[in-house]
Amino acid sequence: MKRIHDSFDRQSMMTTLGATLGKIADGHVEIHAPILPSSQQQHGYGHAALTFAIGDSAAGYAALTTMAPDQEVLTAEMKINLLSPAAKGPLRAVGRVIKPGKRLVVVQAEVFDGQTQVALLQGTMVPVGNGTR
Amino acid sequence: MKRIHDSFDRQSMMTTLGATLGKIADGHVEIHAPILPSSQQQHGYGHAALTFAIGDSAAGYAALTTMAPDQEVLTAEMKINLLSPAAKGPLRAVGRVIKPGKRLVVVQAEVFDGQTQVALLQGTMVPVGNGTR
Amino acid sequence: MKRIHDSFDRQSMMTTLGATLGKIADGHVEIHAPILPSSQQQHGYGHAALTFAIGDSAAGYAALTTMAPDQEVLTAEMKINLLSPAAKGPLRAVGRVIKPGKRLVVVQAEVFDGQTQVALLQGTMVPVGNGTR
Amino acid sequence: MKRIHDSFDRQSMMTTLGATLGKIADGHVEIHAPILPSSQQQHGYGHAALTFAIGDSAAGYAALTTMAPDQEVLTAEMKINLLSPAAKGPLRAVGRVIKPGKRLVVVQAEVFDGQTQVALLQGTMVPVGNGTR
Repeated sequence: MKRIHDSFDRQSMMTTLGATLGKIADGHVEIHAPILPSSQQQHGYGHAALTFAIGDSAAGYAALTTMAPDQEVLTAEMKINLLSPAAKGPLRAVGRVIKPGKRLVVVQAEVFDGQTQVALLQGTMVPVGNGTR
Repeated sequence: MKRIHDSFDRQSMMTTLGATLGKIADGHVEIHAPILPSSQQQHGYGHAALTFAIGDSAAGYAALTTMAPDQEVLTAEMKINLLSPAAKGPLRAVGRVIKPGKRLVVVQAEVFDGQTQVALLQGTMVPVGNGTR
Repeated sequence: MKRIHDSFDRQSMMTTLGATLGKIADGHVEIHAPILPSSQQQHGYGHAALTFAIGDSAAGYAALTTMAPDQEVLTAEMKINLLSPAAKGPLRAVGRVIKPGKRLVVVQAEVFDGQTQVALLQGTMVPVGNGTR
Repeated sequence: MKRIHDSFDRQSMMTTLGATLGKIADGHVEIHAPILPSSQQQHGYGHAALTFAIGDSAAGYAALTTMAPDQEVLTAEMKINLLSPAAKGPLRAVGRVIKPGKRLVVVQAEVFDGQTQVALLQGTMVPVGNGTR
């Protein structure tokens, strides 16, 4: 959907991380990202903040597909369990809506490094009027 | 402590975000970061991944101060509640150990934008042997 | 406050657990509970659900002190880190508002067994119209 | 498996809530519970602590199926998103292992009221030696 691409393109952090949008469907958004030399933690693995960034964004945009056209999405809260080091890349985040709602949208995201799941996220997105909280 | 500085300096993501180490004490580590033009979300605020990155790292290094000298720290899981937009910067993350332990260290971090608290994090750090999981 | 006592008294689960209201102040509510023979896990410690129950309720009622008189409170999400076994009792849960808000109230609770902290909770409460979601 | 039944039977809280074990398979455990008059919140719905109790236990026992015979399971941390009121019962919790491990087991649970999902849980279980932490 166009509004997801527009919003994604305005996120300079996504550019910094080399992230790109993948599959978009109702309640389902995927984001891909390489493990750039500039996105690493102290052992050369992908940084947890990279994994969080694409998991949270995939979940947020999945939520946005369920919201009215004049609404934006904000993360209210997000929990991440890190399952394995992000060793190689590219990473693929798959965001999904678990429960849509007018006030709260409960979401989930899985992040994969090839065939290995490296993280599971669960959280809450809120709709906001255009540009305001 | 030297090992915290050494570990921090090896995290290219911290350089990418412009983050620097602040106060370090037993069970307490602070990290500062500006909201760079390259760290923003779609409305020009600091990206949630920036807030997560410095909150998670401050909490992790706070945990590391309680661990044996040959151990490294890994995030097992982390939850973040976003309280207010990160509008201006610089951001300041304050990480604290809630409960030290040989196998699990429970931690907390608060992230501030000036006087405004923008996030609260709660999670679990695990010690790992040098460079291995 | 009267509405907190009224709401608490209607929660049959609180009676089942032997829980009682303690200190109530703006953005701060405490709940006490013994470790009843009927509230234990497999080793005779207090069950995690007991700790969760009083932590979540203390946090929820702390949130309610910040809401309009005709509103009720619901837990949207809650995370609990268990720090030590609840060995002896009585337990004391201290709920606090971290960030009030019209749509979301971010809360925290600590649960103690004597001087030992046994749990830390962080979550989100939402106001609802009287009796409806 | 016998050890799951034995452990479950020693949890007086499960008896108090009227909970019973359902399907048990590798990395998968189900628990059922009615909404007893003694398990309610202030509007007559099932209490969040009931939903938490069976979701957490189902997830914990799912983790136990992956552990060595002389190990027990403890919840390190658990997050619950409440999706809908638990209105009618009986409730059914389905616990699953997302990532087994020697030190940490990442788990998930879904709780249903009939066909309606009322909660999603995500957390971390740890193995402990027999009866000790």
